[in-house]
Amino acid sequence: MSKILIVGTLAFDEIITPFGESGKILGGSASYISLASRKISNDEIGVISVIGQDFPEKYIQKFKDNHIDLSGVQRLSNEKSFYWKGKYHNDLNKRDTLITEVNALEHFKPEVPQKFKNAEFLMLGNLHPSLQKDVILQMSQRPKLIALDTMNFWMDTAWNELIELLKLIDILIVNEEEARQLTHEYSLVTAAKKIFEMGPEFVIIKKGEHGALLFHNKNIFFAPALPLEEVFDPTGAGDTFAGGFMGQIAKNGIINFEGMKTAVISGSNLASFTVEKFGTKRLEEIQENEIKNRLLDFISLTQFDIELI
Amino acid sequence: MSKILIVGTLAFDEIITPFGESGKILGGSASYISLASRKISNDEIGVISVIGQDFPEKYIQKFKDNHIDLSGVQRLSNEKSFYWKGKYHNDLNKRDTLITEVNALEHFKPEVPQKFKNAEFLMLGNLHPSLQKDVILQMSQRPKLIALDTMNFWMDTAWNELIELLKLIDILIVNEEEARQLTHEYSLVTAAKKIFEMGPEFVIIKKGEHGALLFHNKNIFFAPALPLEEVFDPTGAGDTFAGGFMGQIAKNGIINFEGMKTAVISGSNLASFTVEKFGTKRLEEIQENEIKNRLLDFISLTQFDIELI
Repeated sequence: MSKILIVGTLAFDEIITPFGESGKILGGSASYISLASRKISNDEIGVISVIGQDFPEKYIQKFKDNHIDLSGVQRLSNEKSFYWKGKYHNDLNKRDTLITEVNALEHFKPEVPQKFKNAEFLMLGNLHPSLQKDVILQMSQRPKLIALDTMNFWMDTAWNELIELLKLIDILIVNEEEARQLTHEYSLVTAAKKIFEMGPEFVIIKKGEHGALLFHNKNIFFAPALPLEEVFDPTGAGDTFAGGFMGQIAKNGIINFEGMKTAVISGSNLASFTVEKFGTKRLEEIQENEIKNRLLDFISLTQFDIELI
Repeated sequence: MSKILIVGTLAFDEIITPFGESGKILGGSASYISLASRKISNDEIGVISVIGQDFPEKYIQKFKDNHIDLSGVQRLSNEKSFYWKGKYHNDLNKRDTLITEVNALEHFKPEVPQKFKNAEFLMLGNLHPSLQKDVILQMSQRPKLIALDTMNFWMDTAWNELIELLKLIDILIVNEEEARQLTHEYSLVTAAKKIFEMGPEFVIIKKGEHGALLFHNKNIFFAPALPLEEVFDPTGAGDTFAGGFMGQIAKNGIINFEGMKTAVISGSNLASFTVEKFGTKRLEEIQENEIKNRLLDFISLTQFDIELI
């Protein structure tokens, strides 16, 4: 059995969409990533994060029920948990942040539990690059795969740290806008090439409702997003994608382009569920047969026969 | 041998992109559609259009060289040809029209040559819906497949005529924005359903650099656009797609969802060439082996193996 170690936030989200308001619910990158990984893989999954005294026992229980190890989660007694409130526009493609309270996260110093220092698969959720690097340095052996999520904010405020960090990782997972800001290139093909030069051997560029591209050397693979009749709440789709991706890689144990193609489809598949309800609700409740049936949708969506003669 | 009949414009285009200016070159929907169809199919291809006295002999010769029948093209001696000048923004995703001179097109009354009145495949390029309908009514027998391209402008100015026309056709080919305006639905899945109710059994929604979706009953197929290092000039990509699509359908003779999947890939393939140079230049010069090699790119871009167990 392999180990998957995930660094990211455990938080309160409050989401407003044209379809309703969520109230305060479980959010944070580590929530989506770990729960998604668990849907795919039976490996050991550990989370490194920080929470405040207000983080409810019922949320902790969710992770326990999913056999997700929280020994790397620090609870700060005089702090509140990270809290984000946002409102989506009518087409759900844009959102405005209404409130961000960093709270406990401000004092976050990740500590990798002994048990996970030899994890084979390390997913660095979106955080300050220095914290992400700190986790890598605490590992007792180099993981087989280090995946990194980051965002524009760190390109604006911690450019040098991010550039240093990129040299240490295997796969960068960013969206279109982030890939462009990082490389000053509009073409995603050219952007991926530039990112290779910065360190990662693999690059995934997420395009939201337009799917995701996987790049490695001269190879490109495209996973569409499943066309859905209704997207209810896009929050967490990207983190679900990353979690499903890492879960699939760990499950198959294949770290090459072919293995990652499968993992990208698996991540897209899970993300298509997450957006159907508020927060992690749909992700938590999906059954194995639903995941399989939707994989069949992905196959019929993309597979074709054409004569080359 | 089947017959493909194409109605659309033959025009002068003048294109400005961040990479240069084209000067006055051959443009118009019927140019791209017919030249693209010819790259795929050996069937008889006829064009119905109108040109002015200024339309150069060398352009006529291009079509003759490609065995494209122009007996349905009227030349108006006191008119100039349709002329469009446009400038693309830096990212090539938006363009501004600088000049549109309708010229000869204002007097266009399509006349289907006797020889093409029994064409099996009819592609109605973007024109006033009344003209498109007029062509259908002139056919001596109902084509096996009638495909229609239209645009927002006709939704704004000829809504009733467009709605009537939709009842007569088999497949609508529009872009995202047009699908949404036609149906007042944001979700493309829901939009396609509504379009089915308006008449067409098949719907293709083009998403530019994000590919194209094919809908039929409850089936959905997605063809990505090939990720390109550099797009030089997007003009004509949509018409090239439509032409490649119709050419492939005619070549295979299969009018069902499976056949259309192949055709959508074929259209996307050709469109990926068109955008590499100004106007029809790249489309004209591509060789069969280039088309086949790029089909292999499409296959490796989209095909994957995943265990369902």
